[in-house]
This record gives sequence, C-alpha cells and structure tokens, in this order.
Amino acid sequence: MDERVRRHAEVLVDHCTRVEQGDMVQVSAPKEAEDLVVALYEKLGEVGARPSLNWRLGPAVRAYSQAMDENDYTTKEHDLAAMEETDVVFLISGGGNAYETSDVAPSKGQAAGRANKPILEERLGTRWVITTHPTASGAQKAEMSTEAYEEFVWNAVNRDWAAQREHQAQMVEILDPAEEVRIVSGDTTDITMSVAGMDAANEYGRQNMPAGEAFTCPVPDSVEGEVLFDKPLIRQGREIRGAYLEFEGGEVVDFAAEQSEDALESILDTDEGARRLGELGIGMNRGIDRFTYNMLFDEKMGDTVHLAVGGAIEECVPGDMPFNESATHVDMIVDMAEDSRIEVDGEVVQRNGTFRFEDGFEE
Amino acid sequence: MDERVRRHAEVLVDHCTRVEQGDMVQVSAPKEAEDLVVALYEKLGEVGARPSLNWRLGPAVRAYSQAMDENDYTTKEHDLAAMEETDVVFLISGGGNAYETSDVAPSKGQAAGRANKPILEERLGTRWVITTHPTASGAQKAEMSTEAYEEFVWNAVNRDWAAQREHQAQMVEILDPAEEVRIVSGDTTDITMSVAGMDAANEYGRQNMPAGEAFTCPVPDSVEGEVLFDKPLIRQGREIRGAYLEFEGGEVVDFAAEQSEDALESILDTDEGARRLGELGIGMNRGIDRFTYNMLFDEKMGDTVHLAVGGAIEECVPGDMPFNESATHVDMIVDMAEDSRIEVDGEVVQRNGTFRFEDGFEE
Repeated sequence: MDERVRRHAEVLVDHCTRVEQGDMVQVSAPKEAEDLVVALYEKLGEVGARPSLNWRLGPAVRAYSQAMDENDYTTKEHDLAAMEETDVVFLISGGGNAYETSDVAPSKGQAAGRANKPILEERLGTRWVITTHPTASGAQKAEMSTEAYEEFVWNAVNRDWAAQREHQAQMVEILDPAEEVRIVSGDTTDITMSVAGMDAANEYGRQNMPAGEAFTCPVPDSVEGEVLFDKPLIRQGREIRGAYLEFEGGEVVDFAAEQSEDALESILDTDEGARRLGELGIGMNRGIDRFTYNMLFDEKMGDTVHLAVGGAIEECVPGDMPFNESATHVDMIVDMAEDSRIEVDGEVVQRNGTFRFEDGFEE
Repeated sequence: MDERVRRHAEVLVDHCTRVEQGDMVQVSAPKEAEDLVVALYEKLGEVGARPSLNWRLGPAVRAYSQAMDENDYTTKEHDLAAMEETDVVFLISGGGNAYETSDVAPSKGQAAGRANKPILEERLGTRWVITTHPTASGAQKAEMSTEAYEEFVWNAVNRDWAAQREHQAQMVEILDPAEEVRIVSGDTTDITMSVAGMDAANEYGRQNMPAGEAFTCPVPDSVEGEVLFDKPLIRQGREIRGAYLEFEGGEVVDFAAEQSEDALESILDTDEGARRLGELGIGMNRGIDRFTYNMLFDEKMGDTVHLAVGGAIEECVPGDMPFNESATHVDMIVDMAEDSRIEVDGEVVQRNGTFRFEDGFEE
C-alpha cells in the first residue's frame, strides 16, 4: 500500500476526529476506496475503536430508487438507531461513476433526503469527516491522469494543518464581528447578506479533509441580490452548470441554469429552507491549485467563495439567532480569481482572489 | 446482468425472508457480490423496504485484528442498536480470499465472537438468510471454472422449494419424535446422542439458500462416542482438516486435527458451550452433487451429516429443555456416502447415503 494512504488515514483518525479507545465508528466508502478503508481499519485497531463498514454502491442506489415508490421513503430506523450510538463517522467519496443516479427522478432523491433528515441531524452531532480517496473515476472527472490526481489529493490532505489553521484565523477574525458581507464578481454576481450576530468558524480539518475555509451563516431573511455560480456541481447524478439565483428578503425569487435546471429546481423544492442560504464559505487552501469538479476540493480553493442553499450550520448560529432549517445543504461556487471582490462592512478584504493579509493585495 | 442473479434475488426476498413494505433490511456483502446486491436492491425497491448495506472486507478485518489489543474487543453498540431495529438480514458470502485472516491470532477471532454475541442473538430474532454469490474465488476454492461454478450455484438456489420441502418433511417426521440418534461411518465415527424432547426442523430456505436439511439439537449432556469429520472447514482464515472429537457426557474430552489443530482448539476454547454439540443436521439436497468446500453447500448434500459445536438453535429447543449456550456455532461434516448409516431408535434410516424413503435403499 502507498504510504501516503496510511498518512491520510492517520490525519483522519488523529487530527480530524481524534478517535479514542472504545469509540463506536462508522466508515462509509465505495469499493474503489478499499486501500484507504484498510489503512483506516489498521489505525482504528491500533487505537482500539470499534468500526463498522457501510458500502456506498451507486448502482444499487440507482436500481432501488428506480423501483421504489416515492411515497414509500420512510426514515431508516436501523440506521438512525446506529447513528445514535455512534461517536465518529468517516464519509469517503471518490468511487464509481458520478452520474450513476442520473436516470433517477430528482423527486426521489428529495424524498430520500427528507426521510433521512433525522439521521443526518444525528450524524452532525458526532465527530464526522468527509474525505476523498483518489481513484481513476475521480481523476477522469478532474481531467487528470490517475497518478497526477493521486499526487494532487494526497498533497492537499497530508499537510501542516496547524499552519493552515493560523492562516485561516485571519479571515475568521474579520468575519466573526462583521455585520454585512458583499460578494461581487464580474457583472453577474452582486449579493449582500447580514452575518450580524452569527459566529464565524475556522475549518482546519474537523469535518472536511482537505479542509481550508472560513465560514459563517447568513441571517436567513437578509440576503439580497443575484449570484451566478461559475463552477458546475453534481447533484443526484446530474451536472448543474451556470446556476443562477436571485434573492429578495432572503428568499430565492428567481432561478435558472444553463444545464440541468430541473435538478436545481428539485433542490430548491426540497422544503422551505432550501430556498434560503445556510452558509457563506470562503476558500483559503493555497495547496489546492486547480478545479477538479469535486466540491470538497473546489470550495477550498483560495480564489473561491461558496454559498449553500439549505440547512444552516449549528456551530455558527447562536441560540438566540434564527436558524435556517432544511433537509438539504447544497454548496455552489463563485470563482473570485478575476474582476471580483469580497467586502466586509464596506471594506474590501479580498480582491481578485488575493486576501488583504496576503502578498500582492491591491488596495 | 445475468437473469439468474435476478432470480436468486427474488428467491431471497420472496421465499426466504418474505420482505414487506416498510421492513428495515440489512444487506451484508463482499464487493465481488455487487451484481447480487444490485438485484436485491432493485427487488427491495419494488417491495418498498428500507435497506442499508454493510461491506464485508476481509483485508480490513485482517488489518484491524492484527493491530487490535485482544482486551479492547467490546460489543459494537451501534451495530447492536441497528440490529434491534432490523426486520430482515441478508448475509452474502463468496468474495475475496478465504484465507484473508489466516495470519491473525485465533484468540482475536474468539474475542471478537464473544464481543458480538449480543448482536448475533439479536440477528437470530430477525428474518435472516445466508447465501453465496458465485465468484472466481469461490470457483477456485471449488476447483471449478467460474462459469461451471456459477451454473452449480444458481442451479442449487433457483429450484422448486415446495417440492424440496416435502422431500425433507419425510426425515423431519422420523427425527421429531425420535429418542436417540446414532451416526456410524467407517471405523472412525460412531457417535450416539439423545434428541428426546427436542423439535426437529425442516430447512427449506428460511435461513440458508441453498437450503436442504433436516436438523435438530442434541440434548447437551447426552452425546457419547467419537467422530472424524471427513471434509475440511475454513474458520478464521484457517483450513481445518481431519478434525476429530471424542465425547463423554456430552463434552469434548479429546480432540485432534490433521491440519490447523490450534484453530480447532481455539473454537473449542471460545466458552463452555463450544465443547458441546448445538446441532445435528442431515443433508438432503440432491441438487448439490459435489463438494465445493463451502459449508453452506457441502452440509446440504444428500450424503452428509453435520454436527455443530456451540450454540443450539432456538426453534429446536422447547422452553423446558436444556439449551446449549455459546458465542460460536461451527458446523463440521461427516461424509456418509460409503460404509455409513444413520440409526434412529435402533432402526437404520439412511445407509451409504440413501434414505429409507428413497429408491435404492438397502434394508
């Protein structure tokens, strides 16, 4: 086994989730991630944790969803009971065909999401982390050779997270006391939101690996303006390109997409909260130097901002602040590399992808 | 997908476990059984059940077990909680390397077995079935081509189970009211046990697929004599050949094996119940015409008897009868094709593999 896989497993167990002896652990992975699963299991044995292994198998989900009646989706009570007894969850992506569920009606994906909301909520109470194992299919999506893609993924994962944390803290310090954030990019994106009273957070590898963002939650009713998401996202096996949202009083009042508009519509129709923003995230990981059409990496790039429609994030919303409830949470990316700026309370904190506290910032 | 895989899935869902809408289902499978998993998921979607998928991955178990401290094995509370909410379990074998855990200390397998006993007990209260998907590694173990092995497995599975049930009922009718059973084979096996008060059962596809046996439980203290198991078994990644057990007052007082005697010893050392018999099974499936070194098939052959050390089977033991408790249950096979007989209360009911109620029986 490649030593970098063992190192990846170490980062996941020691840094991301701090697994301890006796912890009940769930690992969820596609078969293509076998090496990482074996490395994780070895590490979990060393620590004395108790893992179980869930197999993510796209073709099974597709066959099931096609056959299933939309009204029969109920909460998986056994999965919920397991999650209630679980301390740590590893979610590994990167296998198989990203378009596997492209011929399943989006409404079934919605129904499944609603049915499994209690499990999602329970999982958010564990120490969980999402990561990717580099596979040939991931490399193909990134339009890279498998070997170069492996190098890319492991470089992004196996790094100095203490230093990265300090770098990001600079943005968290700006965002945390802020009242209003404005994102401008070209003539297609100009959106303003209040973050007053919300807590900004530093993602240095607690829930995403690779990590690399500062994030907070917009006040649900405060979002105004329009945004064009430059980068595609894959959702329910569909690639949504050129998604556009227009907000008034926090709510999506108009939307469009160059491709798979019906998939975008299906996301927005999940529930009421799916038409409001649940997250504002600012990518800060300079180790990720290219788009690979994997949200986990793309949204961490230093030259991007992402907004999520759907559920807010608990750690950012104090008890006395309004919390955007939803069964979904879908991140979408704005490329900020050119003709763009982030303003916080009227001051420019990033211009054309360069932060105020970085070399090369133009006042 | 081969239509015989779909037929296999149908037998499992409709005949073996009678899955209903809303049932919580667990599927447990190696990655080599992907086709059967996809077919099962399709069928479960049609029925409206709610499945989750557990990945059986030998190399992960090996890496974990090697790293794990023997004293750290505790009950997997999340798996137990899930099982408590589960209605139906499909256990699919047939993948990977049968010797994957051959370099793990047997004592760790024992420790894992003891820790997971509550989960096993809970599973026995569900509608569960064990089956095999034909893979190249299974074919190799059977010393057959993959294509011929597929034919063999699907022929054994996709058959007329109503007719098979009637055939087996003839033996159940003999065994159920019986007092004493004696198994004699060559000059190496002569063992006697009481089955008085126990219930005989007909396995026509409720828990094993392929099915094909009549079985009951010996009265724990009644077993006397010696038995040489002609056919090998694989346990904890080790192949045990020529296992020999001698019983007095129901307990193993002497044992030996031509190969992997320490693995046999480790089984017997699991707990007190592991030194007593938990099952007497009589193979009756004439569709299985050769040994394939897969217990699920071998023990159903018409010319075999199997005995299991370890836990008794609930459906055979009335509440007022002694129940052999154990965390393990290990089947071992006696080949009855030649120079052999089964006696029930002094009468020969099978000679040289042919039952009294079959053509060719010699009085």
